[in-house]
Amino acid sequence: MLQELNHHFELMEKQCISPTTTSESTSKTNEEQRLLRALVISSNCEKIFSSGHDLKELAENNDRKYHQLIFDECTKLMLRMRDLPVPVICQVDGLAAAAGCQFVASCDIVLATERSHFSTPGANVGLFCSTPGIAVARSVHRRMAAYMLLTGRPINANEALISGLVTCISPSVEALHSQTESILESIIAKPASVIALGKQFLFKQLEMDNLADAYSQGSKVMVDNLSMKDCQEGIDAFLKKRQPKWTHSNE
Amino acid sequence: MLQELNHHFELMEKQCISPTTTSESTSKTNEEQRLLRALVISSNCEKIFSSGHDLKELAENNDRKYHQLIFDECTKLMLRMRDLPVPVICQVDGLAAAAGCQFVASCDIVLATERSHFSTPGANVGLFCSTPGIAVARSVHRRMAAYMLLTGRPINANEALISGLVTCISPSVEALHSQTESILESIIAKPASVIALGKQFLFKQLEMDNLADAYSQGSKVMVDNLSMKDCQEGIDAFLKKRQPKWTHSNE
Amino acid sequence: MLQELNHHFELMEKQCISPTTTSESTSKTNEEQRLLRALVISSNCEKIFSSGHDLKELAENNDRKYHQLIFDECTKLMLRMRDLPVPVICQVDGLAAAAGCQFVASCDIVLATERSHFSTPGANVGLFCSTPGIAVARSVHRRMAAYMLLTGRPINANEALISGLVTCISPSVEALHSQTESILESIIAKPASVIALGKQFLFKQLEMDNLADAYSQGSKVMVDNLSMKDCQEGIDAFLKKRQPKWTHSNE
Repeated sequence: MLQELNHHFELMEKQCISPTTTSESTSKTNEEQRLLRALVISSNCEKIFSSGHDLKELAENNDRKYHQLIFDECTKLMLRMRDLPVPVICQVDGLAAAAGCQFVASCDIVLATERSHFSTPGANVGLFCSTPGIAVARSVHRRMAAYMLLTGRPINANEALISGLVTCISPSVEALHSQTESILESIIAKPASVIALGKQFLFKQLEMDNLADAYSQGSKVMVDNLSMKDCQEGIDAFLKKRQPKWTHSNE
Repeated sequence: MLQELNHHFELMEKQCISPTTTSESTSKTNEEQRLLRALVISSNCEKIFSSGHDLKELAENNDRKYHQLIFDECTKLMLRMRDLPVPVICQVDGLAAAAGCQFVASCDIVLATERSHFSTPGANVGLFCSTPGIAVARSVHRRMAAYMLLTGRPINANEALISGLVTCISPSVEALHSQTESILESIIAKPASVIALGKQFLFKQLEMDNLADAYSQGSKVMVDNLSMKDCQEGIDAFLKKRQPKWTHSNE
Repeated sequence: MLQELNHHFELMEKQCISPTTTSESTSKTNEEQRLLRALVISSNCEKIFSSGHDLKELAENNDRKYHQLIFDECTKLMLRMRDLPVPVICQVDGLAAAAGCQFVASCDIVLATERSHFSTPGANVGLFCSTPGIAVARSVHRRMAAYMLLTGRPINANEALISGLVTCISPSVEALHSQTESILESIIAKPASVIALGKQFLFKQLEMDNLADAYSQGSKVMVDNLSMKDCQEGIDAFLKKRQPKWTHSNE
């Protein structure tokens, strides 16, 4: 399952290449050239967003190499979501547990219904949620991360909002969908290459301890950004109070 | 006082050794072999959880070496709480000030009554809460940490919850105790060695800047965890829908 | 404008030098010797706190060197606010956008009215808020930082409070001012040199990953602090239940 997801993400990464680049290859169909602008992830299972790794699979293949492979694939997926040059939006309605909670905590924007719950209960079956904890403890404050991981107890949507796991809460599934649409409209209105550049630098600077170093690199990113066609078009359109026309390219 | 506490924690660390190991020594009594599963810290002083260092002690022993010794002992205590292989739960009812607030911010799980308050008022007496600030600023967001440290003003339980200093709030002392009991039940239901492994890695990975590095180490921890007897028992019990029987050992 | 602000901050830094030091120079007027204790920043523009960089200026001077200069000056200003040895308090009433939001996220204490909003909408005009994101993502949790930066949508005062951008919210402009006064009273009641020492170490230790290292340096800061005249005066006054008399000097 994880390998399929990773393969799926690889295909999507290709769809993120800007039209200018893909149009060079005449063999590609129009379908392939359509630009991916955002990824919305939801569950088709009622009441459960994801319950994480398949314990049966882990038990039936009681082999260190196989186990290592599973966690390597899982890590690949989480890092791919961060490295994907488009915003990754998660729609949670129901329970997100263990690696399912790790998945949520690895998305850029998390929208959840009021009835959603989040937990890292691995220790209940003797398998501590160590890898889910990496994503969760980088999202929520320490007191909540330790509580979730050491007790295995679920937190509700409001606790998830206050502690930082969730961006916002919707009162119903319908509201969740209309909120997603509205967020997608905001993203689509922007140039793809600028979103890609911005998302990449966001996660880069977050790993930099030294504030002055982060600013030094950030200034370079801003100067490069200003030389891009879409930025010059965007500022010109803003000053002339007209609609911008994006190329979505890196030029 | 700090030396006594450190000595007390040393004794508790010994109680965390798994029964398999302690049973090797036949001279030990059953009493000694009882396994410590969690630490609950509360105050026997009404309205005050802890007001931190004893200013009189600091003033009467106006000597750099003695002062250094006091802060070294204090640091030892804070690091011991993090390194203790069992969850450390703090029950706050009243004021936690200065190093008392540092103590709270160094526990894994913090339960507080609604009437509790938290402050780092050292600068009022000319002694900035620099060491308490280390624990507090790693718990609450920067805007609140700077406010608490620079103004010395207390925050209430709700502000502490929102900013991340507290896990959850209880309306009364009775509710605080029943909540603690319920959390302890969750912890006791899990294998001790798995909680120890998980807590240790949680604080290790939190100090790692690079996400890919953290996952690389986390995957190894998961694979090792899967080879533990208690994990194999736990997953088997889960799949067969029966109660697990823990050894609590590291095997 | 940024150069003027930087020059203004340089002058203020000089006002932070303790009276003991400035009195050595007899040529200085009393005016110059007045001690700066805190910086309160507000906007004289109704409904807008700050909308960040001037896009017209950036467009009219379409030159990499000039752009680099602007972002270098901006970085200088943000780092100056952190390095200023007095608390920097921000009064927000209205919209703080892009570098205006970066400015807010670079202050020590942020007080905002209920009607305030915060956004990083640069990508709308093709210029991603990469440098504002450095300050914002170090203030709010990741799910909110990514939402603000990738969608460009504003968050309200309550969302800013919950996610960590704001210290507290006032129901009205009058309440904002009286809250500021009350916070200033708390700051003025403390010795200037101790606040300077504390603020400097707060931001230093926040950049240290290793907890034991941070405590090791923190203990030294505490021991040095205890040898300061104002600390000995403060503790003595506290124990004797009298008002302290501060020198505000580093001695």
